[in-house]
Amino acid sequence: MSQEQVIKRIGIIGLGTVGEAVVRSLIRYGANIKRRSLLSLQIAGVCDKRSAKAHLASRLSVPFTSDPYKLINDPGIDIIVELVGGIEPAGTYICDALRAGKHVVTANKALLAERGRDILSLAAKQSRIVAFEASVCGAIPLIKSISEGLVACEVNKLYGILNGTTNYILWRMEKDKLDFSKALKEAKLKGFAERNPSIDIEGRDTLYKLCILSYLCFGIWPKPADVPTEGIGNISLLDIFYAQEMGYNIKLLAVAKRIKNRLQLGVHPTLIPEGHPLSETSSSYNSVYLDTEPAGDLLFYGKGAGGVPTSSAVISDIVDIAFYGKVVMRREEKVVLENNKDNASRYYVRFMTKDCPGVLAQISRILASKDISIASVTQKQRGRKNIVPIVMVTHDAKEDNIRKALKRIDALPSIKCPSRVIKMESL
Amino acid sequence: MSQEQVIKRIGIIGLGTVGEAVVRSLIRYGANIKRRSLLSLQIAGVCDKRSAKAHLASRLSVPFTSDPYKLINDPGIDIIVELVGGIEPAGTYICDALRAGKHVVTANKALLAERGRDILSLAAKQSRIVAFEASVCGAIPLIKSISEGLVACEVNKLYGILNGTTNYILWRMEKDKLDFSKALKEAKLKGFAERNPSIDIEGRDTLYKLCILSYLCFGIWPKPADVPTEGIGNISLLDIFYAQEMGYNIKLLAVAKRIKNRLQLGVHPTLIPEGHPLSETSSSYNSVYLDTEPAGDLLFYGKGAGGVPTSSAVISDIVDIAFYGKVVMRREEKVVLENNKDNASRYYVRFMTKDCPGVLAQISRILASKDISIASVTQKQRGRKNIVPIVMVTHDAKEDNIRKALKRIDALPSIKCPSRVIKMESL
Repeated sequence: MSQEQVIKRIGIIGLGTVGEAVVRSLIRYGANIKRRSLLSLQIAGVCDKRSAKAHLASRLSVPFTSDPYKLINDPGIDIIVELVGGIEPAGTYICDALRAGKHVVTANKALLAERGRDILSLAAKQSRIVAFEASVCGAIPLIKSISEGLVACEVNKLYGILNGTTNYILWRMEKDKLDFSKALKEAKLKGFAERNPSIDIEGRDTLYKLCILSYLCFGIWPKPADVPTEGIGNISLLDIFYAQEMGYNIKLLAVAKRIKNRLQLGVHPTLIPEGHPLSETSSSYNSVYLDTEPAGDLLFYGKGAGGVPTSSAVISDIVDIAFYGKVVMRREEKVVLENNKDNASRYYVRFMTKDCPGVLAQISRILASKDISIASVTQKQRGRKNIVPIVMVTHDAKEDNIRKALKRIDALPSIKCPSRVIKMESL
Repeated sequence: MSQEQVIKRIGIIGLGTVGEAVVRSLIRYGANIKRRSLLSLQIAGVCDKRSAKAHLASRLSVPFTSDPYKLINDPGIDIIVELVGGIEPAGTYICDALRAGKHVVTANKALLAERGRDILSLAAKQSRIVAFEASVCGAIPLIKSISEGLVACEVNKLYGILNGTTNYILWRMEKDKLDFSKALKEAKLKGFAERNPSIDIEGRDTLYKLCILSYLCFGIWPKPADVPTEGIGNISLLDIFYAQEMGYNIKLLAVAKRIKNRLQLGVHPTLIPEGHPLSETSSSYNSVYLDTEPAGDLLFYGKGAGGVPTSSAVISDIVDIAFYGKVVMRREEKVVLENNKDNASRYYVRFMTKDCPGVLAQISRILASKDISIASVTQKQRGRKNIVPIVMVTHDAKEDNIRKALKRIDALPSIKCPSRVIKMESL
């Protein structure tokens, strides 16, 4: 196709890890972009509130400002890249940029999860694009694959390892028998975890990404608060060990299942069988498994975080906007978010009991009374202080019944500490 | 973005497995396509030389012709979908469609591998698009991911399991200890292998796909005849068994490695370590592993063949053309295809020797004389007819040296049948 070279001017707000990497990659791989798309992408300016970043900008040879509106209101700029993160002031920057006629590229998952619907409405009203490939699974071209590659498809199920920090911690616990706090400490040392890692550990980062994927796969923006979310803070080395004995790894999964127009969403640690590619997702990698029609099942695997890998996704969005000037949008669909209480699933349960006769009988009786049938039981060797772990795998049971049964079991005098329960997926 | 609904008319040539699935998917998922892209895709006609296909077309309620030029020359048709396969007459249909001002979607890997460069030149001259997502890895949006998602990236290495038939056969041999001919028979029964499977077994199907990926990743169209290609016909159950003992699976891999502007390409059975997602690619699935900058390493996994999954890729191409009207094209780069003779790699080698003293010494001496050093040796228990298998793993050795050494070793009187040699990849 004979096309002429086109120049597009970019303003970048936020010169943190990702912002710096985007600047470096635009410079380093500019020739690739030009040869492949005939686009010349020029950095018109970078902005950071921290004036100390002026030195970095000068080392990168790009114009610096500490006032984002210098970029947002610059008529010479075509595309604003928002890499500040957090809800505000990032949300205001994006909306003002759209109102000023700019297209926007963002990696801001929290903002999109909380306000994606409004932001995309505003973009549509302004006939501008908001692109956000970098907001989910870093370098993996997942959003493009779902919205364009699978444009005709129904997604039936989605399972995703969407957070590198928690995957790194679980992987280190599983592989080298580190306990949670040692694995977390190591993740911080290696730069895989933030100084305050609660947003990752508690599953909220995974939740935000699941909300964005729900929009892309099912045409619905769930409220984050409506999605049951459980982090990995309660996962102990003991559970990882018992899971492995049974041929499973424990992963923090984002799960979405659609049956007709009813959608179930959740974020929780999950036992998944070894050998499945999701289960083999190591270190801080991300992976997403999709069960679709007519494309069948698909898996995407790659680096989910880090400035350098993520810069690839940001640039791909910039090129798409500059080259095509429009994007395939998912329009909202008639899908209803369903309460998960009635969902049936298999469960791994661990009880810590006193070593005295009749305990197993008591536990089994309570489970049976709540319609929970047991697939396997293993009574482990007595540990310290005469405490005996009993590990059970249930057949399909309702979440609500499990909670109620465990509440009664945990009140038994022979139970020494709260029972642990983790969902299982067959895949 | 406010966009108006657009109607595009499609002509489909070839009503085989994929053609029929495309028609059915366009009908079944038309509402998804319309809601997401605002496109109304209408099937203006289908064509097949086999007049018996008229009944099928009538059951599908689409207009039928046995003359492809009724579609190619129809001024009301925007996009021609070529699903005939093979070099001719498919090549002529595509070129004539481009000359008639149509965009073209094709799944034809053999044609693209042999004549892709000329066809894309003609398309550029005519300002028309030739899209071919369905030609590599069926349902996986791999071509879109590489050409758009990784638009800025350098690809350093590519390893691909690109052929479902051979992966199914190797997987059945490995998993259930079927011998090659039984596994092939089963693959045919299950519809995973053609009646004449030589194009798959001999690695040519994988080779064609590697040629297309070379263009996308490295900007070079290699001549298929220039790429060293070895199929799986020589893989015996014995080698699969010994590989497993060492913690490896054997897969038919397409391999591409770029060092600066020198590119090495090859298709060959390869030992890859268990646990790596490529190694765990089961049944007739495809998977592709890319080592890139700055996006890091990525893996794509999904159904590589079958009409229904492949229809997703064909439709995604149709939507891209209809919606955007242009595609990001890889332009040719200054990359030189390198002779693989001097490549160093680790090798698995199996010798079948007479059980007599001094054999190991003779073999080792010849290997040493060719600069091949041995990483491990296992002499297996004596089999039938007093034949003793000796399995060796070498350190990095040059392919040419390995060939020369084996030629001399196979001429020894104590060697009972040709030695087997398989490359290894560390990954």
